[in-house]
Amino acid sequence: MHVLEAQQFDRAWLEGTLFPLADRMAGLAEFGAHRLLEGRRLFWLFFEPSTRTRVSFESAIALLGGTATGIQVDPRADLVPERLEDRVRIINGYGYDFLLLRYHQEGGARRAAAVSEAPVINAGDGPGEHPTQALLDAYTIWKELGRLEGLRVALVGDLTYERSTTSLARLLGHCGVARIDFVSPELLPVRPAIKEELDAAGVRYRELRDVRQVADDVDVLYLTRAQTERLLYAQRAEREPGHYAVDQEVLRLLPRTSIVMHPLPRGPELPPELDDDPRVACFRQARNGLHVRMALLLLLAGAGGKG
Amino acid sequence: MHVLEAQQFDRAWLEGTLFPLADRMAGLAEFGAHRLLEGRRLFWLFFEPSTRTRVSFESAIALLGGTATGIQVDPRADLVPERLEDRVRIINGYGYDFLLLRYHQEGGARRAAAVSEAPVINAGDGPGEHPTQALLDAYTIWKELGRLEGLRVALVGDLTYERSTTSLARLLGHCGVARIDFVSPELLPVRPAIKEELDAAGVRYRELRDVRQVADDVDVLYLTRAQTERLLYAQRAEREPGHYAVDQEVLRLLPRTSIVMHPLPRGPELPPELDDDPRVACFRQARNGLHVRMALLLLLAGAGGKG
Amino acid sequence: MHVLEAQQFDRAWLEGTLFPLADRMAGLAEFGAHRLLEGRRLFWLFFEPSTRTRVSFESAIALLGGTATGIQVDPRADLVPERLEDRVRIINGYGYDFLLLRYHQEGGARRAAAVSEAPVINAGDGPGEHPTQALLDAYTIWKELGRLEGLRVALVGDLTYERSTTSLARLLGHCGVARIDFVSPELLPVRPAIKEELDAAGVRYRELRDVRQVADDVDVLYLTRAQTERLLYAQRAEREPGHYAVDQEVLRLLPRTSIVMHPLPRGPELPPELDDDPRVACFRQARNGLHVRMALLLLLAGAGGKG
Repeated sequence: MHVLEAQQFDRAWLEGTLFPLADRMAGLAEFGAHRLLEGRRLFWLFFEPSTRTRVSFESAIALLGGTATGIQVDPRADLVPERLEDRVRIINGYGYDFLLLRYHQEGGARRAAAVSEAPVINAGDGPGEHPTQALLDAYTIWKELGRLEGLRVALVGDLTYERSTTSLARLLGHCGVARIDFVSPELLPVRPAIKEELDAAGVRYRELRDVRQVADDVDVLYLTRAQTERLLYAQRAEREPGHYAVDQEVLRLLPRTSIVMHPLPRGPELPPELDDDPRVACFRQARNGLHVRMALLLLLAGAGGKG
Repeated sequence: MHVLEAQQFDRAWLEGTLFPLADRMAGLAEFGAHRLLEGRRLFWLFFEPSTRTRVSFESAIALLGGTATGIQVDPRADLVPERLEDRVRIINGYGYDFLLLRYHQEGGARRAAAVSEAPVINAGDGPGEHPTQALLDAYTIWKELGRLEGLRVALVGDLTYERSTTSLARLLGHCGVARIDFVSPELLPVRPAIKEELDAAGVRYRELRDVRQVADDVDVLYLTRAQTERLLYAQRAEREPGHYAVDQEVLRLLPRTSIVMHPLPRGPELPPELDDDPRVACFRQARNGLHVRMALLLLLAGAGGKG
Repeated sequence: MHVLEAQQFDRAWLEGTLFPLADRMAGLAEFGAHRLLEGRRLFWLFFEPSTRTRVSFESAIALLGGTATGIQVDPRADLVPERLEDRVRIINGYGYDFLLLRYHQEGGARRAAAVSEAPVINAGDGPGEHPTQALLDAYTIWKELGRLEGLRVALVGDLTYERSTTSLARLLGHCGVARIDFVSPELLPVRPAIKEELDAAGVRYRELRDVRQVADDVDVLYLTRAQTERLLYAQRAEREPGHYAVDQEVLRLLPRTSIVMHPLPRGPELPPELDDDPRVACFRQARNGLHVRMALLLLLAGAGGKG
């Protein structure tokens, strides 16, 4: 099994296998390191920087008794670039048990999986997918709200280039949510392919420009980093000013039982002054990433299938 | 407990707790790795490069059975920098047991400690403190000379910007030394705040321009790297040429029972040809750093309190 | 014992000690990590980038139960460079069991060995040696063809600057091969020193410009990366066009029992379309590197001498 894209998973597997195992990992992690994956070794091969994903997986395997190492490649500095497939075969030859790959172009994880003996985990491939982020996001929703089915979810920000919202929308499309609201500037809309997938799955969605239009009618408000030049530029081009941030006004509108999520790092769209609001779940979300990744490693190693 | 600044420690704790435990670590290290901190994990978060401090702590935790990982951040390359507090909370969420922080601005360690569940160890904060260097320096003095009380110590070099002499002067101010001589160019004097602290503690000190004025009347001659542009410039500006290096003449003046220390890396102020003189303690000092850091980790983990 | 240069080894030691132990390592590696070097620690100190050698040694020690860490130094960025000898003494002080050194100038490994308590492994010193590559290459030949004695070996490419062919020619000069063919552009010939060593050892060799001249009369065809500016420039300067690559024509000429080797990464001299030919051994060669390095670490640790 490889982890290549969010849409390879369905709700039955999430709720029946991954999430219960992640819950057990939360318990394990509290009591310190364990030996379930003793001697297993993860190799991370990154063509784009990603300290957070790397560190999260390093922690996950370390807490299970294994180890991690890897290399950072700068594809622009590589005058005579080595073939991805060659790299993967050599890493296989060195006996690693997991290959965590972040590639700078769509399709990298799939190419790696085609030649790899070890399970490949897609840690992001260019503007494409980031499936483990989607899995931890879905786990956070499930853990905080008790279910995925029937939920109303708003995804906010640069929905064209942000990988985490792309992957999450794809995954939730398989999970019976009631509605997805895409809140973004006109120039940075959700990708057409996502809308086609949701149409095919029969999931309702809307495209909006202002968080305040939906804040009183969502279970999950998922923000993303706003302060990129791209997003600021797109916002300026709008005739009506949009609103892609959380503030006191949005929190007043937001139902008491809803949650605010963010993949972090954050920009001004989620001011630290609001962190004390118990609905702001972004640091619980980050911690859940550890437990989901521990569970994934166990499942890929064939050691947690009885979960 | 966090390790934030040299002046949080006093002689009773040094001589009663830290130093005896460091002595025992020297014994442990000789016999190879141990399991006192098995499964414990250190995270290093560095906003300035520091291979030596990182490697020393990596060795320390590895010899106790734990592991280390971390990230190097380039604050100048960070267009939309993530808040230090956010980073610390995420690292906490990943379950690390120690946070080793080198920050590029004074006060970073204190900010981190304010939100961290794991003990924070200050590995240098800009031009501020470097407390673990001061602890290993004090341990070296104690181990080589048998005591701290009543000693005459000369600190030599760029005393305005050198962190190790700043932290050591602060620590020794609490430890009953007889006298501190600050030997530096006029343009790179010891900071006024240090002199105020020594005044308040009743410790005598002098400010001088030439090592040879004090070499026959010190127990510890502590050199620092001289070949920075700043120091050369400051030296050139002096009316009377100063002398901030050790050579054969200085060694002839130096008492037989004194020691020469240096935090390394060195410049021309301590020529390798003099290394064979048994009073040159800089490599013993580096090794002591390992044992002091092992002891610190044990104490922070609550595993060595009975030391 | 240190590993400093290929010519320090002879055939008796290779065939009697190293290769049988490497064979046993291949078996061990298949069954996952072991504890033969539990708690032992390798430090890599690299003045040039080298992910492959680093990762291979990291895997080797991890599979034996030990750990690795290290630092990358950029000698051009080092305004006041620290002495290599000082660095080595500090690393020794931190208690590491192995020092893997890649230096940017010839003689670095020898200088390190002169002051190091821990065994030094030369992972390349500038344009000089790369002995562990030569050992894994010789092991691959021995494993694939059953012997070293009497073999006909062709080394192809930039033979002036390529470290792996330099070290392999030196090692094979001690091993009773029948003949070495050096196939390179006139402007990038094998170094005179190598030819003198082969003369002294009584090993026959030739210098050629076209792989097709020897392809039907070799046991080993050893290619190296061709697409450097240097090699292209040298090729263009040739009156008669040379040929330093493998293609279908060369494979047709090559005896059925011969092998094609390459240290990787590869350029166009070994097209991936030919990988399915069982004589193309480059990925087996990479995997052998793991087992040879495991065996070397055991021997250096004094733990495998009974091999």
